[in-house]
Amino acid sequence: MADSVYRKHLFDIPDNLIYLDGNSLGPLPTAVTARVDNVMSEQWGKKLIKGWNECQWMQQPSHVGDRVAKLIGATPSSVIMGDTLSIKVFQALSAALQLNPDRRVILSDSGNFPSDLYMAQGLIDTLNSDYSLKVVAPEDVVDAIDDTVAVVMLTQVDYRTGRLHDLNTITQKTHQVGAISVWDLAHSAGALPVNLTQSQCDFAVGCTYKYLNGGPGAPAFIYTRPDLISLIAPALAGWLGHDAPFAFEPNYRPAASIDRLRVGTPPVLQMSALDAALDVWDTVDMQQLRMDSINLCELFIEQVEHRCPELTLVSPRNAAQRGSQVSFAFEQGYAVMQALIARGVIGDFRAPNIMRFGFTPLYINKVDVVAAVNILEEIMLTQVWKEPQYQVVSAVT
Amino acid sequence: MADSVYRKHLFDIPDNLIYLDGNSLGPLPTAVTARVDNVMSEQWGKKLIKGWNECQWMQQPSHVGDRVAKLIGATPSSVIMGDTLSIKVFQALSAALQLNPDRRVILSDSGNFPSDLYMAQGLIDTLNSDYSLKVVAPEDVVDAIDDTVAVVMLTQVDYRTGRLHDLNTITQKTHQVGAISVWDLAHSAGALPVNLTQSQCDFAVGCTYKYLNGGPGAPAFIYTRPDLISLIAPALAGWLGHDAPFAFEPNYRPAASIDRLRVGTPPVLQMSALDAALDVWDTVDMQQLRMDSINLCELFIEQVEHRCPELTLVSPRNAAQRGSQVSFAFEQGYAVMQALIARGVIGDFRAPNIMRFGFTPLYINKVDVVAAVNILEEIMLTQVWKEPQYQVVSAVT
Repeated sequence: MADSVYRKHLFDIPDNLIYLDGNSLGPLPTAVTARVDNVMSEQWGKKLIKGWNECQWMQQPSHVGDRVAKLIGATPSSVIMGDTLSIKVFQALSAALQLNPDRRVILSDSGNFPSDLYMAQGLIDTLNSDYSLKVVAPEDVVDAIDDTVAVVMLTQVDYRTGRLHDLNTITQKTHQVGAISVWDLAHSAGALPVNLTQSQCDFAVGCTYKYLNGGPGAPAFIYTRPDLISLIAPALAGWLGHDAPFAFEPNYRPAASIDRLRVGTPPVLQMSALDAALDVWDTVDMQQLRMDSINLCELFIEQVEHRCPELTLVSPRNAAQRGSQVSFAFEQGYAVMQALIARGVIGDFRAPNIMRFGFTPLYINKVDVVAAVNILEEIMLTQVWKEPQYQVVSAVT
Repeated sequence: MADSVYRKHLFDIPDNLIYLDGNSLGPLPTAVTARVDNVMSEQWGKKLIKGWNECQWMQQPSHVGDRVAKLIGATPSSVIMGDTLSIKVFQALSAALQLNPDRRVILSDSGNFPSDLYMAQGLIDTLNSDYSLKVVAPEDVVDAIDDTVAVVMLTQVDYRTGRLHDLNTITQKTHQVGAISVWDLAHSAGALPVNLTQSQCDFAVGCTYKYLNGGPGAPAFIYTRPDLISLIAPALAGWLGHDAPFAFEPNYRPAASIDRLRVGTPPVLQMSALDAALDVWDTVDMQQLRMDSINLCELFIEQVEHRCPELTLVSPRNAAQRGSQVSFAFEQGYAVMQALIARGVIGDFRAPNIMRFGFTPLYINKVDVVAAVNILEEIMLTQVWKEPQYQVVSAVT
């Protein structure tokens, strides 16, 4: 039997904190601080403009992209880093529509992250054509995939409930009807095994500040199936996606490679932080990670249902249909979460009534799970969450 | 008479380096390293997800935007930070076209930075309409502004030659014919006085890693004239531009303020680096900066023309028509620049034959200018640039 993937010593996490929010913002990997310091003082400070060449800043988006590719079952040169996830959704979606010019329906579901839906709405309004965004319930997605659909755009793991779409099956059905798939892996990358090559999916996008621990505002990624790259005319035709950016030609001519999905100057400090954060993953077996994640989630569900019966599980009970988070509904969930946070158990809250708990086996173990439930049970029994200081609403991403 | 703005002690610049490339990447302000360290170790490391609220990460794009606004003559809440300059060009241009729906011509000039032209081309292709991008020579811009033009999109200072467009006059003419103005201030912000409010210009965009010293890949800015903000339907309709991002509504509803031009999660490390870098500007008088800049440029031109007659000035001779850089053409300019760099004088090269020298009076003075010309003269006299090690081409941004 393989070892657990637990390696908390590679992170700087405060003592006495049980951090169940790595699905929102991963903690600080120990290697990051020294790396970013070096980039500031030794690279930017001493090399200045020469850093772009001598320190390979210009190659970071593809170098780091190749590292992310390994974690999502993608081949080298099929993933590029940059911008934010919302921008990457726009790039993928506009490219996908080009590949299916005779259809007008973008299919998504109500479990998608709102920004993905918003970006689709913004693109449709910009195209000023007869495109429409069709949003169905997650359980109705498969049936809604028909030959009117141009693009199926889904987030694999529901940000509120943790419900997991079957990426392979849905992609197959998508292709059977002649549609293009765009997968958002925000809550998949670093959370569970993904094999983009095997799935044959067309486009995938994701962020790196959640399970990949790249830091607040870390760059996003975009994957394109290698045979599609040359067919895309980038909507966001930035100079670093040009075939010869430093020739400063008057006309846009996209790079032959995945580089054509680069846009502007890469954020070198954030790219370097992410690059250092990815060191943690070098020896992680994704199957083992998934097994550890399921064990933690199962233990949490079992304990909470047993000891906190007021809370209602809103995540799928079947582990195979769930990502690496568990959500419980409770009408006063916001106040309960504030009381948890005050006691060192960090999860988060999603309106109207969902408490989310992310399980990240790199730095969370069974002892943490039991300790977290002990505190939750105490909060529920004492009803301490009714105290006024826990009622004040503030935004948490 | 006011003091010079020279304050090199606020920067970490290597000894014996004469850095004439702050128009490409500004040097490291001393305050940045400690600030970013603190954000990593104390904020991300200790606050984790709570950093978004407790450390005001979420407010950074507007907080830093207000600081940039002061430097370009804009009112508070008219500038927002994020993404890259290319993305901001796309946002401004797509918004500008909406404001002028009956016209189909985007006017620009051949002195514009290629990425601005590329982004326009990408937008036009995406719109799949009968828009056209009309590119004229810089000196023909004013005459080409007529009532067929929807948007006049220009970079104020030519990245190769330093030629300075008259922002106020061109904006006036633009408005006289009923067109919308989009100004790229990449080589203006922190280089010369700009008064966006007085000019009444409609949109402005820029980067912060040049004269503002925000670091490699620092976030870009976008300005919108306050009365236009509510009229824009953002093409890039990201969740952080939503009126209530944390309500997670299914439909996009833009924020009432300039926040509607936010897109995705802000890059907190880069925003923090930029915020610290802006401290340098707190007491800088922009008129004095301009005077110092002109004095440095004039001295450089006079000395080079006198001592290096093989080089041809390609920047305007009249200081009023020039930004804060000076360019000379020489057929072997690439090799000469490499020889300069090897001797500690850092400028850069733009194809086919232009050597660029940026003058940044915050950390460059007359002694530096004379020393740089001494080295340039020696290189020209000895023809050391003919040595093979200076002929190898490599990309420099």
